[in-house]
Amino acid sequence: MTRPAAVRDTRSVAAWDLETDVAVVGFGAAGACAAIEATAGGADTLVLERASGGGGTSALSGGLVYLGGGTAVQRACGFEDTPDAMYRFLMAACGPGPDEAKIRLYADESVAHFDWLVAAGVPFRPSYYPEPGLEPPGDDGLVYSGGEDAHPFARVIPPAPRGHKPRHAGAAGGFLMQCLVAAAERTPARIDVDTRCETLIVDDTRRVVGLIARQGGAERLVRARRGVILCAGGFVQNPAMVLRYCPVIARCKYKLGQEGDDGRAIRMAMGAGATVVRMEAAEVAIPLTPPRRLMRGILVNRHGQRFINEDTYFGRIGQESLFHQDGRMWLLVDDGVYERNMAGMEPAHVEETVADLERALAMPPGALEWTVDYYNRHAARGEDPLHHKGAGLLQALDRPPYAAIDCSVDRALYATFTLGGLHTTVDGEVLDPDGEVVPGLYAAGRTTSGLAAAGYASGLSLADATYFGRRAGRAAAAGGR
Amino acid sequence: MTRPAAVRDTRSVAAWDLETDVAVVGFGAAGACAAIEATAGGADTLVLERASGGGGTSALSGGLVYLGGGTAVQRACGFEDTPDAMYRFLMAACGPGPDEAKIRLYADESVAHFDWLVAAGVPFRPSYYPEPGLEPPGDDGLVYSGGEDAHPFARVIPPAPRGHKPRHAGAAGGFLMQCLVAAAERTPARIDVDTRCETLIVDDTRRVVGLIARQGGAERLVRARRGVILCAGGFVQNPAMVLRYCPVIARCKYKLGQEGDDGRAIRMAMGAGATVVRMEAAEVAIPLTPPRRLMRGILVNRHGQRFINEDTYFGRIGQESLFHQDGRMWLLVDDGVYERNMAGMEPAHVEETVADLERALAMPPGALEWTVDYYNRHAARGEDPLHHKGAGLLQALDRPPYAAIDCSVDRALYATFTLGGLHTTVDGEVLDPDGEVVPGLYAAGRTTSGLAAAGYASGLSLADATYFGRRAGRAAAAGGR
Repeated sequence: MTRPAAVRDTRSVAAWDLETDVAVVGFGAAGACAAIEATAGGADTLVLERASGGGGTSALSGGLVYLGGGTAVQRACGFEDTPDAMYRFLMAACGPGPDEAKIRLYADESVAHFDWLVAAGVPFRPSYYPEPGLEPPGDDGLVYSGGEDAHPFARVIPPAPRGHKPRHAGAAGGFLMQCLVAAAERTPARIDVDTRCETLIVDDTRRVVGLIARQGGAERLVRARRGVILCAGGFVQNPAMVLRYCPVIARCKYKLGQEGDDGRAIRMAMGAGATVVRMEAAEVAIPLTPPRRLMRGILVNRHGQRFINEDTYFGRIGQESLFHQDGRMWLLVDDGVYERNMAGMEPAHVEETVADLERALAMPPGALEWTVDYYNRHAARGEDPLHHKGAGLLQALDRPPYAAIDCSVDRALYATFTLGGLHTTVDGEVLDPDGEVVPGLYAAGRTTSGLAAAGYASGLSLADATYFGRRAGRAAAAGGR
Repeated sequence: MTRPAAVRDTRSVAAWDLETDVAVVGFGAAGACAAIEATAGGADTLVLERASGGGGTSALSGGLVYLGGGTAVQRACGFEDTPDAMYRFLMAACGPGPDEAKIRLYADESVAHFDWLVAAGVPFRPSYYPEPGLEPPGDDGLVYSGGEDAHPFARVIPPAPRGHKPRHAGAAGGFLMQCLVAAAERTPARIDVDTRCETLIVDDTRRVVGLIARQGGAERLVRARRGVILCAGGFVQNPAMVLRYCPVIARCKYKLGQEGDDGRAIRMAMGAGATVVRMEAAEVAIPLTPPRRLMRGILVNRHGQRFINEDTYFGRIGQESLFHQDGRMWLLVDDGVYERNMAGMEPAHVEETVADLERALAMPPGALEWTVDYYNRHAARGEDPLHHKGAGLLQALDRPPYAAIDCSVDRALYATFTLGGLHTTVDGEVLDPDGEVVPGLYAAGRTTSGLAAAGYASGLSLADATYFGRRAGRAAAAGGR
């Protein structure tokens, strides 16, 4: 295997096989949007995709795009939102260490970006789906997707739903990508599939001037006069990179991403002088719901303590469990709450008393009993002084039998993907360890560290891909002339 | 400022100002040991130090070196230890994602490394200091420095003290460095101080063949025929790098390190194709003790819950508080436990009842009361079912008044330094993002990610510096011929 990190020098290039202004590596959401804008900017554009068609990991997703500040869909559904509220939520939810420049710009431009997506052919139905969490099962277009309506955000930042789902029943990532691929295909961009990009080519000034791709076993030297845009996903499917940079998620059973999410583009860029940031960060989703009513139960750690409000975004719960509770968590329910959840998770233990459940779970004697007793006393009054779960889900757990569903990382489905990657400006320019631009090199989507530096809300990866993919396309088209 | 990440090419070098076989960047513990072994390996060696003398951040430290497996000091003090017990402890304490190859080798070679240090002129008094934690106040040579004798390690891994302090009263880092600097000065190595290294020089094959240094305002081109060894500390003194790679520790008041810990060597290496790993990791020490008896109190989080055994290593407590409890922690004591600690931390609140204290701290009503009640009931029986604090420190907190000492990151002294850095082999060879060696480039000490990938024990940084500094020196001397 060619070492992707080892850049090649133009001096080794006798002749170019292909020439273009802008080369886009990867044809997921970021690559499609980059190509659309690069061509709109007057650049001869070549898209190179290793699979046999467009879509990438975006096509595997639920299709939610995080948009707000007062989009047509939000307004039609009767929600008020402002760029400032969106900015404040993202700053609070995407840390520690959120990328303020990206968040500020995205919050300010989100309504215009929504309109651009619609104009590009992505339809959204102006209807609100009232169960927060996953994408709506039908084709409703709006949902709470980041815990905006729950503690610790709701009381200090005006909440609004910002998960926008393209008009398609069920998971809409495939549909979204049909729309975006079609939009890219309407441009003059040339699209080469079954093409694997391996190595960047730099000139004597260390400017990126092209890349080496492999088509049908043959090496193709591609000149990119204005720039290369890397839109090739993250590294969750590369076990060596996961162990090296983000070892905690190696414990998760389900790695969310196409096989192309092997970090190759990230390594290619590092070979050309780029730095990576926040490589330890990852989204960790646990599909505890639907049904949402299961969250009338309580989540406890190995000490029998509650540690989070159960009604927050399940991605926050997954991150909290994996990164801060050693991946060990149980959902405790009583007979009044229990039903089988969507993921088919079964109780590990069912007992007539909480004390018996505590013994079965080998928790410190009395700890779980006190947790349940404390919760029940306050829930009966519609209060949760410990973690501020919303009153609508507060109900005393006092109907035996009691059951504990093991939501630990070695038992439950923890779906993860990486959030770390190349350090980029808001225009997708790739930065080196000193914060200087690597000339000729751009990136967007999960190849970069983006809006969600560490914390997460559903829809932020497609927001990163589509919005900052667009900006990278425009910047590359304007670059290098 | 020259961009350190931008490597220069040999083609730009008209003539070398200085030539050597091995260039060592930095004259702390890692640099001194690398120079000693490089000269022993027959290499003409040049040490370049930006300060006016040797010492570096090692000289600011307490001087503990983590050594074990049955050293002469351990045996003289009556402690049994084995390489296997040391290996098991380090694998358990240094994760998540510990570097198994480095830990295995260091556990196996630690006795020999102790003997080497003694032969190099570092004396250790074979006497045990029974208070775990900080370095002994006198010149005792052995102390528990990583929580080996406490939960969660003591019951599953045979404990032994492994903090070895050079024979010097109080903090011994300066003394250790006097010994190691003297040892290096006894070798034929040339030592240039007041010399700042800025940029690596690579040849057409991307092999590192030298560097650019600045002496008295003049640029000096240094050829290193066999290799360059980077031993220039971490990046805790570079605010931009801290925000970019390890934003959580930006909240800590005290950054432990000389001003040279600005990450320049790390950035220089990245410019030559190196990768960095675990850049989010940091040690966070809170000097709650001495006196150790304060740990008869309990540490509680913002929910009024205990979350750790108070008798563990204070570095573990600091990491747990900052990384997992949002940096908010209080030490609760009663009149029977309280005295002023070494750091002079004063109670934020003193109240006649725990309930009043709970109100003063704005904790959930009843939560702290229950925590104290549960703790007291079990402490009276010599038990701590929740966090397994040792029986010797268990004592019911029932003598009013009660006091809460605010140990939160914005109030208490959190002393931090970075643990992430260059990815290296056990021989100090610097690796690129594909795990391939960057030819001609070596590194050791806090410029690298080492034995302590994420968790920590006192003495591990000087272990990394001295042992892997030695190995890098030997490897570089043998390299490139």
